[in-house]
Amino acid sequence: MNPVDYPEPIRVLIGYLKRLPGIGPKSAERIAIWMLSGRQGNFGLEMARAVTRAAERVAPCRVCGFFTGDGGDCVICVDPGRDGDILCVVEQPTDVLPLERTRAFRGRYHCLGGRISPLDNVEPEDLRIGELVARLKAGEVKEVILALGSDVEGEATANYLVEVMGENFPDLHVTQLAQGLPAGGGLEHADELTLFRALDGRKRIGGGK
Amino acid sequence: MNPVDYPEPIRVLIGYLKRLPGIGPKSAERIAIWMLSGRQGNFGLEMARAVTRAAERVAPCRVCGFFTGDGGDCVICVDPGRDGDILCVVEQPTDVLPLERTRAFRGRYHCLGGRISPLDNVEPEDLRIGELVARLKAGEVKEVILALGSDVEGEATANYLVEVMGENFPDLHVTQLAQGLPAGGGLEHADELTLFRALDGRKRIGGGK
Repeated sequence: MNPVDYPEPIRVLIGYLKRLPGIGPKSAERIAIWMLSGRQGNFGLEMARAVTRAAERVAPCRVCGFFTGDGGDCVICVDPGRDGDILCVVEQPTDVLPLERTRAFRGRYHCLGGRISPLDNVEPEDLRIGELVARLKAGEVKEVILALGSDVEGEATANYLVEVMGENFPDLHVTQLAQGLPAGGGLEHADELTLFRALDGRKRIGGGK
Repeated sequence: MNPVDYPEPIRVLIGYLKRLPGIGPKSAERIAIWMLSGRQGNFGLEMARAVTRAAERVAPCRVCGFFTGDGGDCVICVDPGRDGDILCVVEQPTDVLPLERTRAFRGRYHCLGGRISPLDNVEPEDLRIGELVARLKAGEVKEVILALGSDVEGEATANYLVEVMGENFPDLHVTQLAQGLPAGGGLEHADELTLFRALDGRKRIGGGK
């Protein structure tokens, strides 16, 4: 005879919870029991409503691919205070917020939805590159900043985009985020490639002519 | 000006997720974005349904306090194959499954819903002790096993129950789980109190008369 298990609705809930990223079977069980324990009031029902609402309302912005919560274009695309001359290309919509938090960029964004990675079956046509070209054709953008990952796939995607944009928009400035030592990191923690790039991209800060 | 944040339905969802035990703000954000990314299909809506269903259906068994998923008594209480002579008292309904997995106990359970802990404002009347006394009054139970935590609050709760049961049911056998070395643990990993209890509870395994 099998040992007694939780009632079926709890088992189903645990099954969903353990599919969440970073949640193992033990955590899933703990979370499910916590949610259903009387002490949390209506937490379970309220959270279910929040999930449903987000799943129904949140969609990618048709222009840039960032999140929008009301079916229209996102808050960045509709903001007239944004600089339309300069477009920052990122891999994922989640890359937008870290850049926004720097408050150093006041242009608009374009989220590719990933990076070229043949091993994961992600080819250029799986990314929002056609949409990028269409946006650039409108002619307003003067500079594209490539803010992609500094790993092999990020570099490959950057190279591909440089080629596509070079062919189609010869006057467009294309730049890339600086690579080098991260803030607060000593030399002893930097890997070889980071140091190589930091040396390669060194900037003159004084002396001579 | 504040930096751009996620649309409001995502922020609300993150707010709920980070209240879950063991989930920090970073994990909550990661889980929310993962759930809403198109790649997971209808995962968000399906999970919301599972949460709602569990929250609506799961309730404590009126008899023993374990979980029931259909409004009736739990699978253990309704199982006629269970031994009605012997009742195992645990703190939480979640303590039932580990005991069930041993397959060493075929009696029924009584979940107190916690343990006496004045520091957390848990007094005897906050626990299902009245319900326990009522079950014992029916007269079927011959032995009560106290399977409470082996910490201060668990011991205090056990002492209190021994007193209550001694007054009301002088013929009832009251036992407690053995305390000693955990399986697979060497002496070098055992703390002082565990070793003290292991010595105190030593069992004769051979020799002499």
